[in-house]
Amino acid sequence: MLKAQYNERGPVPQKSITAVEFEAPALANDEALVELIASPINPSDVLTLTGEYGILPPLPAIGGNEGVGKIVKLGGKGPAIGQTVLLPAGSGTWATHMVCKTAQLIPVPNEADPKQLAMMTINPPTALLMLEEFVDLKPGDWVIQNAANSGVGSYLIQLAKIKGLKTINVVRRESAVEGVKAQGADVVLVDGPKLAKQVAELTGDNQPKLGIDAVGGSSTDRVAASLAMGGTLVNYGLMSGEPCQVSASSFVFRDVTLKGFWLARWFRNAAPEKQKAVFGQIIQYVAEGKLQTKIHAEYPVSEIKQAVAAAAEGGREGKILVVA
Amino acid sequence: MLKAQYNERGPVPQKSITAVEFEAPALANDEALVELIASPINPSDVLTLTGEYGILPPLPAIGGNEGVGKIVKLGGKGPAIGQTVLLPAGSGTWATHMVCKTAQLIPVPNEADPKQLAMMTINPPTALLMLEEFVDLKPGDWVIQNAANSGVGSYLIQLAKIKGLKTINVVRRESAVEGVKAQGADVVLVDGPKLAKQVAELTGDNQPKLGIDAVGGSSTDRVAASLAMGGTLVNYGLMSGEPCQVSASSFVFRDVTLKGFWLARWFRNAAPEKQKAVFGQIIQYVAEGKLQTKIHAEYPVSEIKQAVAAAAEGGREGKILVVA
Repeated sequence: MLKAQYNERGPVPQKSITAVEFEAPALANDEALVELIASPINPSDVLTLTGEYGILPPLPAIGGNEGVGKIVKLGGKGPAIGQTVLLPAGSGTWATHMVCKTAQLIPVPNEADPKQLAMMTINPPTALLMLEEFVDLKPGDWVIQNAANSGVGSYLIQLAKIKGLKTINVVRRESAVEGVKAQGADVVLVDGPKLAKQVAELTGDNQPKLGIDAVGGSSTDRVAASLAMGGTLVNYGLMSGEPCQVSASSFVFRDVTLKGFWLARWFRNAAPEKQKAVFGQIIQYVAEGKLQTKIHAEYPVSEIKQAVAAAAEGGREGKILVVA
Repeated sequence: MLKAQYNERGPVPQKSITAVEFEAPALANDEALVELIASPINPSDVLTLTGEYGILPPLPAIGGNEGVGKIVKLGGKGPAIGQTVLLPAGSGTWATHMVCKTAQLIPVPNEADPKQLAMMTINPPTALLMLEEFVDLKPGDWVIQNAANSGVGSYLIQLAKIKGLKTINVVRRESAVEGVKAQGADVVLVDGPKLAKQVAELTGDNQPKLGIDAVGGSSTDRVAASLAMGGTLVNYGLMSGEPCQVSASSFVFRDVTLKGFWLARWFRNAAPEKQKAVFGQIIQYVAEGKLQTKIHAEYPVSEIKQAVAAAAEGGREGKILVVA
């Protein structure tokens, strides 16, 4: 049994993390041994390894915050052996095996694609909640987002389509346009100084009321400038590494509101029934094949350094998965 | 009779504006001739001359957007000759005389300081509404603002004090500290990388829920970083000439909301009774001497170029007034 452990944080995310052997302890009555099926490396995982994220676990720590596995052994009662389950959030999921409280394991349909389910607890609710929690949108409304070829960006396109919303998707390079179109994007534009003008021409009197920004820097302002008077811009990441910039013309003269979205805070504050409803909806969409994202590559836990290095690199199309 | 007219806009705000002679037309039944007492040059006036403001009048235009005068002649019925009145908003108030509809002239107390009343329709409501419209503050709460030695900044200190709020005032240079303290500031700090830490030490569990920014650039982020979790930052200007910058740590991880405030938009949307209530309150405070700001210098309309040049320069303490 292997787990991906790190003892320090620093600018090179894969530097300290390494696969460490361990033996699972005897199972208590309320515990189960779960074998990993897949766990993704999200941008927030990389920022946790570099120390740039909003909450950091005490060291040493095991990497990974979501995934699915199957039950291979039970200490007492619980779901059936072989049942596919969601791993507990934030529990250090880059490990071939985990000992979990059975009460924390959420069974998911065995017949659904487990690798898609492995990515469902962080990026899809981020996309869904940004579409639902800030602006009251109606079918036919436009939403604009940058970083459209990211994991969240891809889910946002699909969820918007399910809701009857139309998406304008902003990417940084021409070569990303086709891949984003293939996800179901209504419009894909390459970021640049003409963005607001292009959006105004496309949307006429129906300019986007909601903008989604994960890039920061001057890209934030270009999305803000594309919004309708009184629109809302929601930021959830800074892929450019620069703080968000907003000009007076956007938000003093055009009454744009800027908000941040952080799923970890939502989890702390949202009622359990609301959380259950959000996950129930996402499980259903994934099981039905309506919600999926591309997988770039899979690495076993034993190759965790290579996996993290690949996830930290730009220009990918699709997620990096850690598998047993 | 002289009026300060300009025919073009450009980077040097005083370049085109010049005092032009005119003769007042015969007064209609519903009109009055008003002689200027005083009209200030606000930052928004300078930005209108340079073309950087959110709304720009058609050219040629007369400068000036607020002020007071006294009635010297009536076409029919109206307030008494000699009555001090507020000039209509945005009417081109840098003129020795104006012909106005009597219905648009708001009488103000003759015994109050007319030069203080001349500055009451733009900066004081901006300060008052930013304190009232965004966050529900209670006596004892802290508010933090930068550009604290501006006109709005000075009014905000006085209005906060009237409401029982405490102010942390951020200035860019040590030499401004004493002047801001003299306005009634509770705390004055020089802007810098330690700002958030200083504010946290000062305010303990009662961090500011409201921040006010008129500087932009990285100063926006330093104010945002000084706010309580879930706080609101309101921007109303960009004295640095740079767009606002906000880092993820402020508004993704700490749930800070950014809003812009623009008085012209508030005027368009607020109910007439609300506008009347706001102005009534401000007239009362000014008449009682509770609300005032410093005057740096006065220029007659004939010296409008020198007046605008002085207003466009930094480092002043107090307003530039245009007088008859």
